[in-house]
Amino acid sequence: MESLTPPYYAVVFRSELRDSAEGYAEAAAQMEALAETQPGYLGIETLRSGNQGVSISYWQDTDAIRSWKAHSEHLMAQQSGRQRWYRWYRVEIAHVERSYDFGEF
Amino acid sequence: MESLTPPYYAVVFRSELRDSAEGYAEAAAQMEALAETQPGYLGIETLRSGNQGVSISYWQDTDAIRSWKAHSEHLMAQQSGRQRWYRWYRVEIAHVERSYDFGEF
Repeated sequence: MESLTPPYYAVVFRSELRDSAEGYAEAAAQMEALAETQPGYLGIETLRSGNQGVSISYWQDTDAIRSWKAHSEHLMAQQSGRQRWYRWYRVEIAHVERSYDFGEF
Repeated sequence: MESLTPPYYAVVFRSELRDSAEGYAEAAAQMEALAETQPGYLGIETLRSGNQGVSISYWQDTDAIRSWKAHSEHLMAQQSGRQRWYRWYRVEIAHVERSYDFGEF
């Protein structure tokens, strides 16, 4: 994704999947596609290694984050996540105040 | 690491290493050990997958982040990073306002 110019918001989602997480990959792809259509969505970056993952989604403001969290299809996915897919997760909502980079993405 | 209670700061460091990054792993371990001794340091979480990585370090305030960025040994490591190890990196300094979690870490 392109560089963003602060200020903006980041939702840092760290997680560990259970050993059996059937249906997770499809649901995650669907949720990512749906998130892209939401007002105030700026992008997402995901890294996975084994059962662990970090997804950082970027948003214009906290209203956009709240709306996405409360979206009906996303609510169902969150419930499946807790019941079937995740061993644990941790979500942090953060206001990005400054950024800098090096090299070519 | 333990759960932190907002507010606090997160430095999100996303990076891609070059195919040859000799000495990187040792330097990264040294910098992590040194960071732990800095005032205002709260913790770090790192995930790597192939050449890509995400490290999220946690700090009490922006003064702590500034001091660590300007630490002499860290400055040398940053220079080596640009000259020898990283294809690119992106750093975001973010104020964590809210967090929640699920399950056992």
